[in-house]
Amino acid sequence: MRVSRLAEESGVPLATIKFYLRDGLLHAGERTSATQAEYDESHVRRLALIRALIGPAGLSLAATRELLAVVDSPPPAFHDLLGHAHAASPRAIGEADSADSAEADRLIERAGWSSCGKENRSALVAALAGLRAADFPLNDDDLDHYAEAMSTIADAEVARVPTDSPASAVRYVALGTVLVEPVLLAMRRLAQERASERLFMGDARQGPAVGS
Amino acid sequence: MRVSRLAEESGVPLATIKFYLRDGLLHAGERTSATQAEYDESHVRRLALIRALIGPAGLSLAATRELLAVVDSPPPAFHDLLGHAHAASPRAIGEADSADSAEADRLIERAGWSSCGKENRSALVAALAGLRAADFPLNDDDLDHYAEAMSTIADAEVARVPTDSPASAVRYVALGTVLVEPVLLAMRRLAQERASERLFMGDARQGPAVGS
Repeated sequence: MRVSRLAEESGVPLATIKFYLRDGLLHAGERTSATQAEYDESHVRRLALIRALIGPAGLSLAATRELLAVVDSPPPAFHDLLGHAHAASPRAIGEADSADSAEADRLIERAGWSSCGKENRSALVAALAGLRAADFPLNDDDLDHYAEAMSTIADAEVARVPTDSPASAVRYVALGTVLVEPVLLAMRRLAQERASERLFMGDARQGPAVGS
Repeated sequence: MRVSRLAEESGVPLATIKFYLRDGLLHAGERTSATQAEYDESHVRRLALIRALIGPAGLSLAATRELLAVVDSPPPAFHDLLGHAHAASPRAIGEADSADSAEADRLIERAGWSSCGKENRSALVAALAGLRAADFPLNDDDLDHYAEAMSTIADAEVARVPTDSPASAVRYVALGTVLVEPVLLAMRRLAQERASERLFMGDARQGPAVGS
C-alpha cells in the first residue's frame, strides 16, 4: 500500500508516519520509484505497537526508541532482557539521601531481592525518597505487604514468558513490563474505590465517619 | 527567613520558588517591606511536597496543581476524595474500541468493582487497549490474578487511612495514591528480576533455556 493508505489503515497521521520513518522507529517501505514506496501489514502492526507504548504505557519517544531497539535486537542472555526492559521507565528519578538508601537495602534484604541490579534498586530508593519528601508514613510491615503482593505477581509473570524463541521471549518481557504497568495502576484505583465504598459508606449509604 | 535562605534550606532554585509563588502552588510569605517577605518551615515542607509529586511520582505541573488543590480544600464527603486523587493521573489515555470496553466491563464484573466511577473504568479500558494494540496476550485468568493482588493491596491501604480529621484523611488518600505507584512499580521490577534469575539461571548459574 502507499503511505497515504498506511495512514488511513493505522489511524496515524501522515506527518507522524514520516517522522517515525526518518527517526528509524518505523522500518522503510519497499521503494517502487524515486518518490514512492510500498508498505504492508508489518508497518501497520509496528505503528500500533509504537502508539501503544507512547499512549497508554506513557513512555517518552526516547524510551520507546530504546525499548524497541531491544525488541528488534534481543540481547543474547535471557536474564539480561529484564534490565533492558526496565531501563525504559517512564518514571523520573528524585533526589534521595542515605536514609532512603538504607531503607531500600533493608527492604530488599527482607524481600530476598539482594542480587538485584543497580537500576531497579535506584528506582526503589527514589520512590522511597518521594514518600519521605512528602512526609508520607509507611512502616516496614506496610512495605513488606506491598513487596509480597508484587512478588506473587512477578512469579506468575515470569512463569508465563514464552520460551519457544528468544525473539518472542524478548517481546514478552520488554512489552509486558511497561504495558502491564497502567493495567495494575488502574486496577489498584478500582479496588481502592470499592474498598473505600465498603469501609466508609456501608450498606445504608451512610455518611462517612470523616468529613461529616 | 528570606527567600534566598528558603532556596538554600529547601534545595529548590530561587527562580523555581518564584515561579511556584506566582503560580500559587506555594503560599505567599509574610510581607515585611515593599520588596521583602518572611518565609517559615511551612514553606520548606510545601516545597518538599511539590518536588516529591513532580519528581518520583512523575506528575505534570498541572496534575500537581490539581492534586494540591484537593489537599488544601478537602471535599466534604470522604468517598469523593478518591475520585479527586485518581483524577491526578500521570498516565495518558490511549485510543480504545468497543472490544476493550467490553473486556474491561467483564473484568470489572468478575472483580466485584461494578459500582466504580467512570474515570477509573476509562483508565482500565485505555490500559487494555494498549495491550491489544501491542498484540500482547493476557487471558482472563491472568487479568483476574492481577485484580486479586491489587484488591489485597487496596483493602490494606484503605484500612490504614487515618480518620482523626478530614484534612489528614485527604492528605493520606491523595498522596498515597500517586506516591505509592512508583514504589509498587519498582518492587514489581525487583521481584521480576529475582523470579527470572531463579527460573532461568538456576543454582549453578546455568545459561538460560532461551537465547542459548
